[in-house]
Amino acid sequence: MNPSSEPTILNGATGTLFIIGGHEDKAGPMTILRRFVAAAGGAAARIVVITTASAIPDAMAAMYAAVFPQIGVASFTALEVASRTQANDPATIATCNQATGILLSGGEQIRLTVELGGTQLEDAIKQRYLAGAVVAGTSAGASALGETTILDGAASFEVLREDISLGAGLDLVNNLLIDQHFDQRLRIYRLLSVLALNPGLLAVGIDEDTAMVVSPDGCAEIIGSGAVTIVDGRFVTYTNLPSVDPGQPISITGLTLHILTDGHNFDLNTRTPIIPTT
Amino acid sequence: MNPSSEPTILNGATGTLFIIGGHEDKAGPMTILRRFVAAAGGAAARIVVITTASAIPDAMAAMYAAVFPQIGVASFTALEVASRTQANDPATIATCNQATGILLSGGEQIRLTVELGGTQLEDAIKQRYLAGAVVAGTSAGASALGETTILDGAASFEVLREDISLGAGLDLVNNLLIDQHFDQRLRIYRLLSVLALNPGLLAVGIDEDTAMVVSPDGCAEIIGSGAVTIVDGRFVTYTNLPSVDPGQPISITGLTLHILTDGHNFDLNTRTPIIPTT
Repeated sequence: MNPSSEPTILNGATGTLFIIGGHEDKAGPMTILRRFVAAAGGAAARIVVITTASAIPDAMAAMYAAVFPQIGVASFTALEVASRTQANDPATIATCNQATGILLSGGEQIRLTVELGGTQLEDAIKQRYLAGAVVAGTSAGASALGETTILDGAASFEVLREDISLGAGLDLVNNLLIDQHFDQRLRIYRLLSVLALNPGLLAVGIDEDTAMVVSPDGCAEIIGSGAVTIVDGRFVTYTNLPSVDPGQPISITGLTLHILTDGHNFDLNTRTPIIPTT
Repeated sequence: MNPSSEPTILNGATGTLFIIGGHEDKAGPMTILRRFVAAAGGAAARIVVITTASAIPDAMAAMYAAVFPQIGVASFTALEVASRTQANDPATIATCNQATGILLSGGEQIRLTVELGGTQLEDAIKQRYLAGAVVAGTSAGASALGETTILDGAASFEVLREDISLGAGLDLVNNLLIDQHFDQRLRIYRLLSVLALNPGLLAVGIDEDTAMVVSPDGCAEIIGSGAVTIVDGRFVTYTNLPSVDPGQPISITGLTLHILTDGHNFDLNTRTPIIPTT
């Protein structure tokens, strides 16, 4: 949890993360999906979509099976892993192990944490990332990329002392609290409520059709049509949270807020935006 | 606009401001209205409510005429000023001049700026404040207390380059951009959009049934059931706003965010929260 002692990027990682806020464009320029494919090897990319988060995995698989060939992908496989048994199946692991690009679909975070947590597939995804593959998550899949993921908690309109369920994520990036569909579902207050409980985290709220592309050097580029809202709790000077009753508004002071759009970069190592020089 | 050269509190002011986020409780403990009355002299208070902002001034006047006697006010007058003629009427000014507590009701900011701007009543309110009276504004009346007031602009769900209409407020406090019904109407993105255009301002978003009580020394105490969201643009390091098309999301980095609830204090001179010592 201490950013000074633990780097954001996993030790030895050589892959790239695409943290996508959901509803990435699939009918227009498909900017985010094209960047994902390019990073995964372009025409040589072997794309695997994992539909575990989704309650409608067949439809999810069919959607991506239709989209990826349109942007030059020759090798596409959907892994409709819906149980821990499947997540430990050697055939599943073999499919994951040949991927150059892995996409965790949307749905509900809890399916990912419950069905993949501690399985061989979870480990295989991490090993592929460490070895240089591109791992993307969109919507619920994005939230689950971190160590800790928000499982539920209604969108509140205030910063409250709340019982927001957190779960163990896939642990592909340290100290990052990820939320998605961020502006569309008005989640800023929920994110701040969680950050108040965990001020050592860096909270990122990613809008729909928007992504953070995280390089092995810890630089995150924002791409897409929306914005990424970044809240840094390191310099919080005070909160009264421990003495506030559940459900009541809290005080918190000294948060740092950045909002970044397409083409802008953020250094996750130092937690500072990279200011364009032109 | 430069906080280092212009103090937030008007030069020589000895009065108190109550900046109320709207819907202050009028049926329960009435904490905010009681504090307003106490500050205005308690049983000796002479309360004047100015209903200019409201489209239903008779109903507004009747509501406050029913409430204030319940909390010990013997002298209550509603000034249903609906025109500049009335705002320059000697009888109106005489009523204002005997007030120890003035409350600007809710409604629409534009009525206040259009009907009171540059009138003798506007000047009389300021003179009463300078001389030690309590001036309160709730909802639209709160927004209009500043030099600059947000006249309209829909609640957006992103920080956009927007054409949000600003108007000249009653100028009772410097460098403060005030918004109200803040969490209930999801105005944080609108406030940030305005702040991006005017980073020298201190933006305060006040929830319903919540108030900032601003003393002549520049200390603001938060009271009531909600929170005050304070965004300081002084340390903004970058924005791409000038090169963004209207209606599109912008980047802005280095905002400072504080959220304060009942009993907490903020020093408007230094723009720092006062951290409780216990």
